[in-house]
Amino acid sequence: MGNNLTKRSQDYSKWYNELVVKADLAENAAVRGCMVIKPYGYAIWERMQAELDRMFKETGHSNAYFPLFVPKSLFEAEEKNAEGFAKECAIVTHYRLENDPDHAGKLRVDPKAKLEEELIVRPTSEAIIWNTYKNWIQSYRDLPILLNQWANVVRWEMRTRLFLRTAEFLWQEGHTAHATKQEALDEAVLMNDVYARFVEGFMGIPVIQGTKSESERFAGAVETYCIEALMQDGKALQAGTSHFLGQNFAKAFDVKFANKEGGLEHVWATSWGVSTRLMGALIMTHSDDQGLVLPPNLAPHQVVVVPIYRGEEERSRVIDAASELAKSLKEAGIRVHLDSRDTHKPGFKFNEYELKGVPLRIGIGPKDIEKGTVELARRDNLSKSFVAQEGLATHVAGLLDEIQQNLFDRALTFRNDHITEVDSYTDFKKVLKEKGGFVSAHWDGTTETENKIKQETKATIRCIPLNNPSEEGVCVFSGAPSNQRVLFAKAY
Amino acid sequence: MGNNLTKRSQDYSKWYNELVVKADLAENAAVRGCMVIKPYGYAIWERMQAELDRMFKETGHSNAYFPLFVPKSLFEAEEKNAEGFAKECAIVTHYRLENDPDHAGKLRVDPKAKLEEELIVRPTSEAIIWNTYKNWIQSYRDLPILLNQWANVVRWEMRTRLFLRTAEFLWQEGHTAHATKQEALDEAVLMNDVYARFVEGFMGIPVIQGTKSESERFAGAVETYCIEALMQDGKALQAGTSHFLGQNFAKAFDVKFANKEGGLEHVWATSWGVSTRLMGALIMTHSDDQGLVLPPNLAPHQVVVVPIYRGEEERSRVIDAASELAKSLKEAGIRVHLDSRDTHKPGFKFNEYELKGVPLRIGIGPKDIEKGTVELARRDNLSKSFVAQEGLATHVAGLLDEIQQNLFDRALTFRNDHITEVDSYTDFKKVLKEKGGFVSAHWDGTTETENKIKQETKATIRCIPLNNPSEEGVCVFSGAPSNQRVLFAKAY
Repeated sequence: MGNNLTKRSQDYSKWYNELVVKADLAENAAVRGCMVIKPYGYAIWERMQAELDRMFKETGHSNAYFPLFVPKSLFEAEEKNAEGFAKECAIVTHYRLENDPDHAGKLRVDPKAKLEEELIVRPTSEAIIWNTYKNWIQSYRDLPILLNQWANVVRWEMRTRLFLRTAEFLWQEGHTAHATKQEALDEAVLMNDVYARFVEGFMGIPVIQGTKSESERFAGAVETYCIEALMQDGKALQAGTSHFLGQNFAKAFDVKFANKEGGLEHVWATSWGVSTRLMGALIMTHSDDQGLVLPPNLAPHQVVVVPIYRGEEERSRVIDAASELAKSLKEAGIRVHLDSRDTHKPGFKFNEYELKGVPLRIGIGPKDIEKGTVELARRDNLSKSFVAQEGLATHVAGLLDEIQQNLFDRALTFRNDHITEVDSYTDFKKVLKEKGGFVSAHWDGTTETENKIKQETKATIRCIPLNNPSEEGVCVFSGAPSNQRVLFAKAY
Repeated sequence: MGNNLTKRSQDYSKWYNELVVKADLAENAAVRGCMVIKPYGYAIWERMQAELDRMFKETGHSNAYFPLFVPKSLFEAEEKNAEGFAKECAIVTHYRLENDPDHAGKLRVDPKAKLEEELIVRPTSEAIIWNTYKNWIQSYRDLPILLNQWANVVRWEMRTRLFLRTAEFLWQEGHTAHATKQEALDEAVLMNDVYARFVEGFMGIPVIQGTKSESERFAGAVETYCIEALMQDGKALQAGTSHFLGQNFAKAFDVKFANKEGGLEHVWATSWGVSTRLMGALIMTHSDDQGLVLPPNLAPHQVVVVPIYRGEEERSRVIDAASELAKSLKEAGIRVHLDSRDTHKPGFKFNEYELKGVPLRIGIGPKDIEKGTVELARRDNLSKSFVAQEGLATHVAGLLDEIQQNLFDRALTFRNDHITEVDSYTDFKKVLKEKGGFVSAHWDGTTETENKIKQETKATIRCIPLNNPSEEGVCVFSGAPSNQRVLFAKAY
């Protein structure tokens, strides 16, 4: 028995790719760079969506839906944004197929059905949305606009990986419009904080909140806030971003409002998003060589009950007892699955649920029935124990909370152990090479230095942490003066 | 005061278009044929989604996600399906833009970034899904597969109307795979029934379940089940379809399974979908000359509380009382909105909520506080009454149920009054012209007759009702023998 998964220590990247497929989360599609999100993976994503959606609504946002296609003339209106995405857009040029006269039963693009203006499949929706907001905003009374949309977007990446970087992905994108700069800044900070609370509190993944350096900013943003997580292989992963867009899009699309004094001003903007990439962060934060490890909050099944028996007589007794147990857990609000399949042995099932990361497994056989106990197996630390059937639901509910907390604590310890302060470029490179993780170092604040470090080490500035302490020092690369440390890392 | 809506009797089509925009449901986007679904419209769609999703899961289905793009070679594999959608596809041919050397700041399609194989933006997903199922299905143990996806699709329609027919729309599409013909047929019937229960029970729209004639079938289906609703102008609207696809897609994509006896068979399939078109059905079934009318199940706000006061002193007293009322309703599980805006007069608010279809409006002023009453206004029949504040939540909950039922009953009466049996082609045309609605008539079963009737009257066969009684007769058009009546109508 075993799951035949490559070990993380052997080849982390291969372990990840195998795990995503073997745990039934997703697979590569027949379309280059695109993925199929399988039911088990999608069920986890649905749980993320539900919680995020609740948090967005709690903070005053509503959902809406804007078109998939962006006419080229709108796409190019905000020049920096257009420049940032121009190299990776899918472009619709025609709207009809016709029979191919040379190949019976085949179709070809109808050259007569060429669009007058090409349509860009949205890589992000600022352009189409700000072109719409223009008609919605006349006065300060129309502000703020606090919208979000759940959508698919397309970025034609050359090197793709399931969940982490795919040509099409699912995400949410918030787009807000404000009367003042301060209000927009507050919104960008608030939504970054919502992301941090969600990713830490719900997904059990510790993150560092910060701002991006100029070169890592979203194309078209004045300031990009982000949450940065650390994966088990010591590489960072940007888990969410929230952008203060200033008046850039309002100017590009001529969106002005009459303020209380009757003057006309450009509107202030934010946008913020997280995507199915979070699935990658989830996998690479908690999982192990046995397979996926899911925090109870995200697990489609928090508990699986596996009946253990030999022969028909035992079977009916054990299934009855297992059903009763499952029922009592369900009544306590626990997402429980009773696996009564007769076609698979318990060992096969144990293996399957380990691979799929179910937080708690309950085994029950004839001896357990006699003793009034069950066997409980925790997925997070692989420990097993026998506990009484009486009061099981309460015990399980407590254990699920404990597992959720344990996963976060474990990840936090690992992350904190992998923030290393260095004061020389030699140490910088040594830490990156031998230990990985975040390297906290002084930087002279120039894009030039940042680029050179990136070229030489592949490390980028992940963020300048919020509330970063002021500290006099010199840039590890250039020796120029610096008044704060920033976090570098290799990243996904 | 007033909403300046065109009256239905003047111009039904204009009334509809105005209502969609004025009630803040949706608007035309800058992209030809596409729409922006505004927050209020989207909130209604979200309620539909939530209930449908619950019903799908209750009947054993899971959600998944498949790519937006379909490579041309897969798209054309099932010939009838391809033929049915070839004339209305958006086609991606390039994956990069470049700076336009002739126009500074503008972009153009990079001719070097032409795709080897064009990608079709999915008009429906059978092709990409069955190409995927091929890898998932080896044995009968892998069946059934019961999946659904919530997605956007694109059909390049030439004449578009908000919600009813747009180039991009949102929908769900179920795609199931089965070991036997009977199981697939049962699934198609079951899901059509789920649609009927949802549309009647949740949306308050009566429907007739039936099957389509051959010429109205989904491209690639062996049998199409449908639910047909009747709009207030006497035109029918297809509200949902469920297709028995036979083995057509399994054959096109070579999807076989080993049966229990070890033989290889092609897999049986269904697909089924409803879309944002349901928003159009909702509007055209219940609304009136004053604006939108929402069934309580779908209303983002089931009740709005409008405080009525003059001056500061009254204001604080009335707002306090209104808040208490709103709180008690909320605690009873009612979706209530307290409109305490100081910038708008009660009359303006009344008008706004009438236009937006809020089922119940509660007005409360100083006199109501003295008397311990409130004024209740029902949106469905525009009646008003004074009721006691004590026990209000119970009363309101009961009223909401009553309104939900009343809307359905009213629509059912209208629909039943508009099913007219005719036995001659003269009467057929007369009823269509003067009364509208469904015309129940004998038909000789040929596509030729169907097409001629369509050419001459614009009426199509909406469906052959399920459990249709057998009745000897002659075709109203050809005089050929017929053994059942079918339902004709002009349709959206």
